[in-house]
Amino acid sequence: MKYKEKIAQLVTERKTVICVGLDTDIEKIPAHLKTFDNPILEFNRQIIEATSDIVCSYKPNIAFYESLGSQGWEVLKKTVEAVPKSVPVIIDAKRGDIGNTSAMYAKAIFEDLGGDAVTLSPYLGEDSLAPFIEYKDKFSFILCVTSNAGAQDFQFLEVNDRPLYHHVAESVLKWNKNDNLGLVVGAPYPQKIKELRAISGNLPFLIPGVGAQGGDLEAAVRFGSDEGTSLVVVNNARAVLYASDGVDFAEKAREEVQKLNQIISGLGIY
Amino acid sequence: MKYKEKIAQLVTERKTVICVGLDTDIEKIPAHLKTFDNPILEFNRQIIEATSDIVCSYKPNIAFYESLGSQGWEVLKKTVEAVPKSVPVIIDAKRGDIGNTSAMYAKAIFEDLGGDAVTLSPYLGEDSLAPFIEYKDKFSFILCVTSNAGAQDFQFLEVNDRPLYHHVAESVLKWNKNDNLGLVVGAPYPQKIKELRAISGNLPFLIPGVGAQGGDLEAAVRFGSDEGTSLVVVNNARAVLYASDGVDFAEKAREEVQKLNQIISGLGIY
Repeated sequence: MKYKEKIAQLVTERKTVICVGLDTDIEKIPAHLKTFDNPILEFNRQIIEATSDIVCSYKPNIAFYESLGSQGWEVLKKTVEAVPKSVPVIIDAKRGDIGNTSAMYAKAIFEDLGGDAVTLSPYLGEDSLAPFIEYKDKFSFILCVTSNAGAQDFQFLEVNDRPLYHHVAESVLKWNKNDNLGLVVGAPYPQKIKELRAISGNLPFLIPGVGAQGGDLEAAVRFGSDEGTSLVVVNNARAVLYASDGVDFAEKAREEVQKLNQIISGLGIY
Repeated sequence: MKYKEKIAQLVTERKTVICVGLDTDIEKIPAHLKTFDNPILEFNRQIIEATSDIVCSYKPNIAFYESLGSQGWEVLKKTVEAVPKSVPVIIDAKRGDIGNTSAMYAKAIFEDLGGDAVTLSPYLGEDSLAPFIEYKDKFSFILCVTSNAGAQDFQFLEVNDRPLYHHVAESVLKWNKNDNLGLVVGAPYPQKIKELRAISGNLPFLIPGVGAQGGDLEAAVRFGSDEGTSLVVVNNARAVLYASDGVDFAEKAREEVQKLNQIISGLGIY
């Protein structure tokens, strides 16, 4: 099943748009896990086991694994394997390179790691995204408005009286011939989520930055999904992963997702 | 020694600005190497051995190694180790993420892989580059004008009557407090190299895209270095790596670099 269909089905069945960001930091996981051969993998497996029936995606950020070298890459691969096949995995990689090189990244992410979706940077333009787009059953979220302060440095610059990120959104919409593109739009900018929904057709949005980065979940879902008519996936990492630093960390992570799901069901749009 | 000093010393001593791009593709290396346990590493080692006294840098693109999974990461690490300490290694990674994540990438590239320099994407702005900039002895080249056709999709858009890439160049110049930033400017756009040199102070330029991508070496060096007064590093991958598909591949690679170095010495600026 294609990523988009998988997601749409989970959102409908589970009434959730929550994605758990598996940005696992060895410095932050519970101390008792450090006796395991592979503490990060153990942590991820327990988080996945405790939450995989109440989320719509997982999103490991590849940087957290690369910082551990080749062993980290193996942990990432095993983490992807630990996710039930019914739940898609977004590899947060923010890649973008010239064509022949992008093809190598696409192979790494979709074939070696087995990701269902990826995040990509738009700076190099259409031909840098093409090798990813060619994987018709896979999906790519293109960075549009990011959740950090530095988003304003270039993304908000005015091009023909409209911000650069509008041009990114419109280009992605134009390049979406295989119906496998979406946008990354940061939760800290709810008005921009609204603006972008109005000009982006039904492109799915991946929304990072709720919780630790200050974004508002309700606004993200309402504006991002246009009251439930478009697909939206809201990522949450730190608040879920580090809900407890005790042996109950996985249970507490589940409770945290349940709280988020309650907020979403309270909106009355799913 | 800092990357910039290392490079400056090699350019002066060797009268070369040539960087060899170690974008090694298993499909393109000589057939006789396939009997080795690790054909790509063997290929890289022979290329390095044959050229390390006549180049100023190596630049492996990380995508080529990631496409081979965790084993590829090990090959990359061993490739970096195979380069003599006197010659710096640029890890071509084009990373860019929010602060806490960029810190993880910086650790992967500068600590785990042992790179001296890196390429980064500017789309997420200053705070996405900051963790790299904090490594004072390391160096970051920020994508400004890339060598592909897609460069025009966003990089060439007009912001206040000047192209976006001018704004990128000026921002990088402003953020260069640790004197460890430079720009990536593609060889297929020599007039833009000239333009950018005029507004970028002495920021070093990394220039990809000569040879296979059609860029002109002479213009790249003249305009990029402003007749030898600024640092420029010109990358060449395919023409050097695949100069021969026989057992003489390393020897032919050396001859290819020598040809490039002759063109450079013919300019009379070093």
